[in-house]
Amino acid sequence: MTKNYYFTEKMSIETVNARMGKDINLRLCEVMASLVTHLHGFIKDVELTQSEWQVAIDFLTDTGLMCDDQRQEFVLLSDTLGASMLVDAIQHRRPERATENTVFGPFHVEGAPELKMGANISLDGKGEPCLYEGRVLDLNGNPVEGVRIDVWSDNNEGFYDVQQPSKQPTWNNRGVFITGADGRYWFTGIKPVPYPIPNDGPVGKMLESLGRHPWRPAHMHFMLNHPNFERIVTHTFVSGDPYLMSDTVFGVKDSLLVDYIPSKNRKTKWQAKFDFIMVYERD
Amino acid sequence: MTKNYYFTEKMSIETVNARMGKDINLRLCEVMASLVTHLHGFIKDVELTQSEWQVAIDFLTDTGLMCDDQRQEFVLLSDTLGASMLVDAIQHRRPERATENTVFGPFHVEGAPELKMGANISLDGKGEPCLYEGRVLDLNGNPVEGVRIDVWSDNNEGFYDVQQPSKQPTWNNRGVFITGADGRYWFTGIKPVPYPIPNDGPVGKMLESLGRHPWRPAHMHFMLNHPNFERIVTHTFVSGDPYLMSDTVFGVKDSLLVDYIPSKNRKTKWQAKFDFIMVYERD
Repeated sequence: MTKNYYFTEKMSIETVNARMGKDINLRLCEVMASLVTHLHGFIKDVELTQSEWQVAIDFLTDTGLMCDDQRQEFVLLSDTLGASMLVDAIQHRRPERATENTVFGPFHVEGAPELKMGANISLDGKGEPCLYEGRVLDLNGNPVEGVRIDVWSDNNEGFYDVQQPSKQPTWNNRGVFITGADGRYWFTGIKPVPYPIPNDGPVGKMLESLGRHPWRPAHMHFMLNHPNFERIVTHTFVSGDPYLMSDTVFGVKDSLLVDYIPSKNRKTKWQAKFDFIMVYERD
Repeated sequence: MTKNYYFTEKMSIETVNARMGKDINLRLCEVMASLVTHLHGFIKDVELTQSEWQVAIDFLTDTGLMCDDQRQEFVLLSDTLGASMLVDAIQHRRPERATENTVFGPFHVEGAPELKMGANISLDGKGEPCLYEGRVLDLNGNPVEGVRIDVWSDNNEGFYDVQQPSKQPTWNNRGVFITGADGRYWFTGIKPVPYPIPNDGPVGKMLESLGRHPWRPAHMHFMLNHPNFERIVTHTFVSGDPYLMSDTVFGVKDSLLVDYIPSKNRKTKWQAKFDFIMVYERD
C-alpha cells in the first residue's frame, strides 16, 4: 500500500485517470482522461469554492429537471456556450468554397411534406412573402440533381409551428424540395424575424447574469441531403439583422449572410438568392 | 460589422468570452471565462464528434432527471470524477499536523440527538461494537473544549438509516457529542463496513464503462464544529480495508487511516483511537 494511490490536490488528475480499467474502450478512455484534465484544470485555475461548486451542482440539476420531450435545456446550454458550434466546426471542416454548416437547432421536425418546386410553405399567410431561390452545385460548379432540401423557419411572430400547435397550421413554414437536373431550387416562404431562445429556465438566468441577451438573428434553416455528398445543415441569415453580431448561439458565419432584396415580380415582397456548394462524401 | 465577431473554430474561446457584458459580477466573469476555455479546450483536444456530443447531452440529461429529494446524481458524478475532493482540498489547505478534510457525502442529517459522552449510537444492536475515542486538540496540543462532534456511519449491512427508513431505527448510528475541558471524546458505535455508492443510475453506468467499481472503503463520518476553529468534515477509515486504494470517490487520505484493534474491555469487540487537530478560524 502506497500513499501515491491517495488523492492529493497536486496529483488529482493523474489519480483519477489512473483509476480507469485496462480493458475499456480506447476512445472513451481518451475522452474521459481529457475531460478530467480540463475539469480539474478549471477548478484549479479559478480555485472554485465549495459554495460556488454548490451553485454549479444546483444549476446542472435544474437544467436536467427542465428537460422533457419538448425542451432540451442542455442543448441550449451547449449552444449558448459555443460548444455546439465548436463540435460542428470540427466535424465539418470543408474546402473554402463549400457551404458552411451551422447549428442544427431544436426545431427541425422529421417528415415535412415533399412539395413541388415553387410551392408556398407559409400556410398561415402571415408575414412578408419571400421568394427563395438558387442552385445546388458541387465544388466544380456542376449542378447536383436529386438533392433533398429540407427548409424550416419561424413565422412572423418568431415562433415555429411546433411551439404554437394550437395557433399555427401543422407544417407551417416547412417543406422538402428535390432538385432536378439543373440543380435549381425555388419556393416561397416569409422573410424570417429574430426571436429569443426559450429563456424561462436556468440557461435564460445564466445569460441574464452574464449580461447577454437570448436573441437569435432572423434565419431560414436548410438541410441538404444527397447520398453522394456530405450533408449540409445550415441557415441563411438576413443581412442587416441587428443580432447578427451577437447571435446568442454563435451560429452566424459571414458566408451565410443573404441580402433580402425587393422582389422583381409581384407575387412576393422579397427575394433571397443563395447557392449551396456540396462536397462529395469522403470515404 | 466585422468578421471578427463571428464564430470560428480557431477563435471560439475568445468569441464566446467576448460576449459577456461589462457590468457583470467580476468573479462570475472569471469563473465563466475559465469554464469556456476548458470546455472548448476539451472539445478541441479530443476533436469530439457530434455523436459523442449527443451521448454527453443524453448523459447529462439522464443525470439531471435522476435527481430528487433523496438522490443527487450530479453530486455522485462530481464525487466519482474527483471534483468534490479537489474543491474540498483547495478550500481546506491546512498546516501539516492539522486533521485533513474529506468529502462530506450525501448521508449527513441535521438534528441528530446530542448524547452523553460514552453513549452507544448503534440503536439496532447489529454489527461489531467498537469504542471510538480520542482527543480534540489545537495545533499546540491544547485540548479544545466545547467542540460539537457530529458522527454518522452505515450499519452492518452498509446502509445509513435514511436509506432504510422502515428497517432501521431513526438516528441509528448517528449522534452528537460535546467535548469537555479535557478535549476528550468517546462513544460506542460499530465497526463500519464497505458499501457501494448508488449505482443504478447514469453514474453507475459510467463507472462500469470505465472499468471502475462503485465501492467505498469502510469509514466513520465526523464533523467537528467550534465557533473559534475551522470546521472539520472528515472520515476515519478502517485500516486494511480492501477498497482503501480504490475508493470510488477518492476520499481516502493516509492521515485518516485508523487501526481497529481488539478492545481491552469486554463491552466492545473493537476500539478505534483518533485525535483531531483543529486550526483556529482565519480572519
